[in-house]
Amino acid sequence: MIIYADNAATTKMSRAAIEAMLPCMEEQYGNPSSLYSLGQQAKEILEKAREEIAAVIGASPKEIIFTSGGSEADNQAIRSAAEIGRRNGKMHIISTAFEHHAVLHTLEKLEREGFSVTLLDVHEDGLVRVEEVEDAIREDTCLVTVMTANNEIGTIQPIREIGAACRRRGVLFHTDAVQAVGHISLDVTNDNIDMLSASAHKFHGPKGVGFLYARKGIRLSNLIEGGAQERGKRAGTENVAGVAGMAAALKEAAAHREENAAHLTAVRDRLIEGLGQIPHCALNGDAKRRLPGNVSFCFEGIEGESLLLLLDDKGIQASSGSACTSGSLDPSHVLLAIGRVHDVAHGSLRLTIGEDITEEETDYIIRSVTEVVAYLRSFSPVWRDLCAGKTKFIL
Amino acid sequence: MIIYADNAATTKMSRAAIEAMLPCMEEQYGNPSSLYSLGQQAKEILEKAREEIAAVIGASPKEIIFTSGGSEADNQAIRSAAEIGRRNGKMHIISTAFEHHAVLHTLEKLEREGFSVTLLDVHEDGLVRVEEVEDAIREDTCLVTVMTANNEIGTIQPIREIGAACRRRGVLFHTDAVQAVGHISLDVTNDNIDMLSASAHKFHGPKGVGFLYARKGIRLSNLIEGGAQERGKRAGTENVAGVAGMAAALKEAAAHREENAAHLTAVRDRLIEGLGQIPHCALNGDAKRRLPGNVSFCFEGIEGESLLLLLDDKGIQASSGSACTSGSLDPSHVLLAIGRVHDVAHGSLRLTIGEDITEEETDYIIRSVTEVVAYLRSFSPVWRDLCAGKTKFIL
Repeated sequence: MIIYADNAATTKMSRAAIEAMLPCMEEQYGNPSSLYSLGQQAKEILEKAREEIAAVIGASPKEIIFTSGGSEADNQAIRSAAEIGRRNGKMHIISTAFEHHAVLHTLEKLEREGFSVTLLDVHEDGLVRVEEVEDAIREDTCLVTVMTANNEIGTIQPIREIGAACRRRGVLFHTDAVQAVGHISLDVTNDNIDMLSASAHKFHGPKGVGFLYARKGIRLSNLIEGGAQERGKRAGTENVAGVAGMAAALKEAAAHREENAAHLTAVRDRLIEGLGQIPHCALNGDAKRRLPGNVSFCFEGIEGESLLLLLDDKGIQASSGSACTSGSLDPSHVLLAIGRVHDVAHGSLRLTIGEDITEEETDYIIRSVTEVVAYLRSFSPVWRDLCAGKTKFIL
Repeated sequence: MIIYADNAATTKMSRAAIEAMLPCMEEQYGNPSSLYSLGQQAKEILEKAREEIAAVIGASPKEIIFTSGGSEADNQAIRSAAEIGRRNGKMHIISTAFEHHAVLHTLEKLEREGFSVTLLDVHEDGLVRVEEVEDAIREDTCLVTVMTANNEIGTIQPIREIGAACRRRGVLFHTDAVQAVGHISLDVTNDNIDMLSASAHKFHGPKGVGFLYARKGIRLSNLIEGGAQERGKRAGTENVAGVAGMAAALKEAAAHREENAAHLTAVRDRLIEGLGQIPHCALNGDAKRRLPGNVSFCFEGIEGESLLLLLDDKGIQASSGSACTSGSLDPSHVLLAIGRVHDVAHGSLRLTIGEDITEEETDYIIRSVTEVVAYLRSFSPVWRDLCAGKTKFIL
């Protein structure tokens, strides 16, 4: 049995996305900037995709800029807000300790350029408190950036309320919605979002393409300078095939969102229930306010990496945290942010299931993880010390 | 008859490139940062592509960073050199007046940040003079950036000699080789290149992917901050399919480079000879030191845009200049740089032919352009004034 349970890292492309890309790869190869028919056909594909994508999040097509992915969109959104702030003498930015590195590293760079950054603590439930955001807003705050759903523990933030607070105080609100778009309901108007980043490969679209929504009137700064593509805001020949694939994938995800979410939520809750039976473990993040497909646990006394390798042997492909930081020996900054201590954070497992998961596969995952955790503990000196009372259990 | 003669704008993807992408779009969808088998397979595809690409330009794989295209690579290369310069108190950059906007606009931004930029004149033959580059180098010069081949007029610059001059003076040398890679012989060691930008869709690869070569020891600055992909120098989940397509396309282009170049050069020279018979026209750029597939003319007394539309009606898809600036009413900065006056620059035609062009198509192009130019002149008031001696012919 092979179960791909790392959909937060990347997803398998949908048939619809592949079918949308193929004509652009084969016959519709024109440059959208070219004036002759082949170029204009490519331009039409691009603009149709822009309309479809805008419609899914309640934006207008002109508010969508195509990028090479979520990281680029995050970088451009934050840099743009910072430039607006700089021009207005407002150089304070609010974010949270458990954002994606595309946000955190951009903020670190801005700090070196003279910006002041407040990183809010995240509570043990993996949720940011609206009132804490509001309290952190200062006269010189130019931007609040809080992710819609966390990439490791899947918790869904109260972005509508955060957006409302920002709007009351006249502060721009950006959300990294890379994990959320296509998976939960989002509407930039109702949710009070000024800027939003998304990545196609997180919702069964291709890798290497994403988009940035920026509300009309927000002056974007270019991250990539050059030609006049994307209304002069993002240079480089447009990735027509990628954009077409992204639109097809998002359209499909949006059309089936409710049924997918219902199925995933049921499976997720069953996994949480089943894995929760393992002794000395803890679910990371709130049990309900989380993405339909996200299950994240810490198991005391084991190493997450060993767990992953043994699960891979059993055909279960999962992650300890974010794929973007795999290979790093540091514990997840997200797990530390919700209060896990180093040792516990090292024994983490993230399962992000796909829409096609079956009951049989669900049971197989519970059985396998339970077995592998017990097996690893059977020769773990840390576990032995815990059981012998030499060190204290935390979970 | 349909003849695509705008290969400098973009190219049709090769079968090899499509075939290389399909498995990554279908089954090999893992995230290269993931530790389980599916992820590691994606990583292997990426690293094999890196080796293949490096081999074509004489680089080592670790010197190749994948980007979303040529513009991003240009931006990152120049920004990186500027940062190195800033740290060393060297804030002068040398370039030329006819670079791509990805270079020129990045330089403008750096000027606003305190850098001083010297843009060298280009001679009427479309060539930069090595001695002028050398004369422009100052004690505080941190970078020389000169394109390998111009995107509008196709002239090939003496980059090996420019690179040698830079090396003698201890100055970094970057070349925008977007139009050159896969079309002419390039070797970063022999050609004394420190940094080089390339774009896959210019050599029958996919749009939305490119690469930056940076010689070992050059510290790159991130344009996109985030995860640790590309040895921490370019964040964002890698476009595995795009990279695989790029490598396949480049490998094929390199394998057939000499025969393709011979064929294209023969057709190019025949087009130059044939179109040169049209009265009051001029070839843009040196007749021999130009890309094998590039033919660029100015015709007096007509508008380039009308010429393009009528040629499109005849099935010939061509351009007046760069696709990246199509839709702009300003005359091409490249044609102005080689000394064309505004009116003449407006009457330009760029034909960039593909490897599969036939003799019959070549003759059809000559016949069609000749007819359309005569037709447009037949009701052009500018042409009437020229013929009546009211204004003077320039060409």
